[in-house]
Amino acid sequence: MEKRKSNLSYEHSFFSFITATLNGISQVILIENPLTGVLILLAITISDYFLGMISLVSAIIGTLIGTIGGADKKIVNQGLFGYNSVLTGIALTEYLNGPYQWIIALIASAIAALFTAALMHIMRKTEIPILTFPYFVLTWFILLASYRLETFHLSADLEPQSLANWTLNIAGKGNWIEGSFKGIGQIFFLDNTLSGVLLFIAIFFAGWKFGLYAIIGNITALLVSYQLEGEHGLIFMGLYGYNAILAILAVSIVFNTERTKFSFITGIIAACLTVPIMAGLSTLLLPYGLPALTMPFVLSTWLLLGAKKVLPKI
Amino acid sequence: MEKRKSNLSYEHSFFSFITATLNGISQVILIENPLTGVLILLAITISDYFLGMISLVSAIIGTLIGTIGGADKKIVNQGLFGYNSVLTGIALTEYLNGPYQWIIALIASAIAALFTAALMHIMRKTEIPILTFPYFVLTWFILLASYRLETFHLSADLEPQSLANWTLNIAGKGNWIEGSFKGIGQIFFLDNTLSGVLLFIAIFFAGWKFGLYAIIGNITALLVSYQLEGEHGLIFMGLYGYNAILAILAVSIVFNTERTKFSFITGIIAACLTVPIMAGLSTLLLPYGLPALTMPFVLSTWLLLGAKKVLPKI
Amino acid sequence: MEKRKSNLSYEHSFFSFITATLNGISQVILIENPLTGVLILLAITISDYFLGMISLVSAIIGTLIGTIGGADKKIVNQGLFGYNSVLTGIALTEYLNGPYQWIIALIASAIAALFTAALMHIMRKTEIPILTFPYFVLTWFILLASYRLETFHLSADLEPQSLANWTLNIAGKGNWIEGSFKGIGQIFFLDNTLSGVLLFIAIFFAGWKFGLYAIIGNITALLVSYQLEGEHGLIFMGLYGYNAILAILAVSIVFNTERTKFSFITGIIAACLTVPIMAGLSTLLLPYGLPALTMPFVLSTWLLLGAKKVLPKI
Repeated sequence: MEKRKSNLSYEHSFFSFITATLNGISQVILIENPLTGVLILLAITISDYFLGMISLVSAIIGTLIGTIGGADKKIVNQGLFGYNSVLTGIALTEYLNGPYQWIIALIASAIAALFTAALMHIMRKTEIPILTFPYFVLTWFILLASYRLETFHLSADLEPQSLANWTLNIAGKGNWIEGSFKGIGQIFFLDNTLSGVLLFIAIFFAGWKFGLYAIIGNITALLVSYQLEGEHGLIFMGLYGYNAILAILAVSIVFNTERTKFSFITGIIAACLTVPIMAGLSTLLLPYGLPALTMPFVLSTWLLLGAKKVLPKI
Repeated sequence: MEKRKSNLSYEHSFFSFITATLNGISQVILIENPLTGVLILLAITISDYFLGMISLVSAIIGTLIGTIGGADKKIVNQGLFGYNSVLTGIALTEYLNGPYQWIIALIASAIAALFTAALMHIMRKTEIPILTFPYFVLTWFILLASYRLETFHLSADLEPQSLANWTLNIAGKGNWIEGSFKGIGQIFFLDNTLSGVLLFIAIFFAGWKFGLYAIIGNITALLVSYQLEGEHGLIFMGLYGYNAILAILAVSIVFNTERTKFSFITGIIAACLTVPIMAGLSTLLLPYGLPALTMPFVLSTWLLLGAKKVLPKI
Repeated sequence: MEKRKSNLSYEHSFFSFITATLNGISQVILIENPLTGVLILLAITISDYFLGMISLVSAIIGTLIGTIGGADKKIVNQGLFGYNSVLTGIALTEYLNGPYQWIIALIASAIAALFTAALMHIMRKTEIPILTFPYFVLTWFILLASYRLETFHLSADLEPQSLANWTLNIAGKGNWIEGSFKGIGQIFFLDNTLSGVLLFIAIFFAGWKFGLYAIIGNITALLVSYQLEGEHGLIFMGLYGYNAILAILAVSIVFNTERTKFSFITGIIAACLTVPIMAGLSTLLLPYGLPALTMPFVLSTWLLLGAKKVLPKI
């Protein structure tokens, strides 16, 4: 009897571990839904088999650290130890190459989980979510470290440039429809339209409201960045869109605990703000050749969520 | 009867809104006094009519966001939602040009009010005031964004330079008396001596102690920066003085809740510290061509106010 | 009788001041032991007489500010107002030259104590120690200020470089045994092997566990940085080791309040992490020609100590 019970309990905890892992993947887009996690994994895998593997293993590593480390089970099960690991694993697979690329990506995904825990502790009193801060700071550090450690091979497209020599050339053509689907894909570094469509399905699966707001956020960012005359190449690759999608989901839905009549507008403002923040941050990172990743989303969301604590009517 | 009462209440809230707006302007120099606000507005307007308009409208926007957002009325009435908006509006009018300059400045002044609210929340537990942090961070971001968004036109005098090519040349002549008046003007980007005189009157109007300390702070910074051999051109334009004025007012008067025998000296230390911080920050911002704005004041004041919490006798 | 009592009390407070000062020196390596402080002072003095003097006077200044400022006596006696002052005094003596070098170093050591107090206040709620954050931020600011203030003379070996022109060349030979002793010396900017030996004795004097962990931390960093192919010249000068020593002492011993079975491993992880952080930070600071100082230790330690609050089993 004892043994059977233990087996059941083992099965139970195995099942809940899998759910937590898949939630970790879906939490990248602020959703807690294992099936959304499966669809995201599929979207990544059809675009790049290896990247799909890394995503899954990173999510497992992050969740494992939360479990072994003895974190609050509820938080682990929500996937909150997974998403920064997933993103770090994916980003480093994209930006590094060489034989040790995947080992570095997986070790970094473990560190991302520790960083997540540390930041949860530091920000607890502010009642503001940590979002993907650990992911982009950690990824930047590893990319910067590549200039000093020969084992880390940086992929060629990250090129430090002096701001003094920079000239803006916004010309370029693009397809508005394709651009709309590419925004969501950029969160996972996918610029394949089919993966974009699958990701939208994954979002709609979690609730039509998520899907609708994601589309609105993306279109808002496309229009704002086009209106402010950002580089067309970047706009139609979805590089001005992915932060806006995350920001509107965070502000209008996920962390919108006390619904007010302005909550839709607040989300739109958050989406709009990601555009100048993206532009400013790209300038700031230019001398280091670093990508902005999801920092515009995090800054914009923190701004609005923080403001709501002092301005309860917005 | 009902209608009349409502009219009275409307008049009352209109009047208190105007007071809050003018307080917002005077809070730029840490003073809560609507008439000081009027005098500051006058000082700006005689130097540049358009800049005066922008200042007033920015103050209105900031105060409006505090009011509509449902912030604590006491804080709104003190003008605490206005001053970061005023400064942001002025700075962007100075550093941007092109047809959309004023629209960008006013939208940014609205965002400054949201940023103010967010930072109030985040820093609440530290019991340290947010000062003008939202202003300079937001202004920097917008200026940086101009390199990537063609609609934002940067004025020509902000030029990114490599630190590797930098050579210091401190030579230059200046008038000590004029330099003394220009410090206060630089807070509002005015280098007109008459405006400087008017601003000193505005400060004295709020209390002789404010005026006296402002003069002491400014002279301290002039002497320290001259002694440490800063660039004479910057010193006599008042660019080493404006942060010192704000720092001594903040540390010795405004946030000096528990008066100690050292409170004068602590303020002097804060004023002195703004000089090396200004110098260091200018170096840090050189590759981006950004102005230091009021960050030296904020860092120096935070340092001293924070230290006073642990060292109660200073 | 009264007079004698007062004399005794005077003697007592003089004695406790000396102890606090020496503790301030030993706290640089996270140890609270006046005799360790004396040994460290000796290690510095045999390498450079003047640097020994500056260390002692800086420790006195820091402790004096804690005492006069009315800080909690327990904290002052632990030497917690001294160590940032000591490090700031030493670093500025190393990196500045010219006739005012020592005056600037000592004034900065006083500011370091104020900064220590401010940061203690700001970070109190997080229950995470401030470590040497005030030291490296303050030192960076003073070094940056030297580009703008002619009185501050920067020593020649700090050279700003564009990352775009950077090429990594790891070649170089070194002695593993010497490299092992140089790590500990680098905390105090000593690359003399005898001083390194004396510093190890100072650490062992405070407890064999401190000494053993210091050696393990240093060897871990040597191996990791060699394995990741860092520049051999830097590795054998101990520049990848000193942060690892501090990190393992902090994580595995000093701030390891709730001992868990993982506490040794957590310290090893902290030591390993200082290597990529050192590499990344060096890249980040390259355009400014700044040294990384002890920031890798601080970031790595904060990461692990913060994570332990949410992951109690690690």
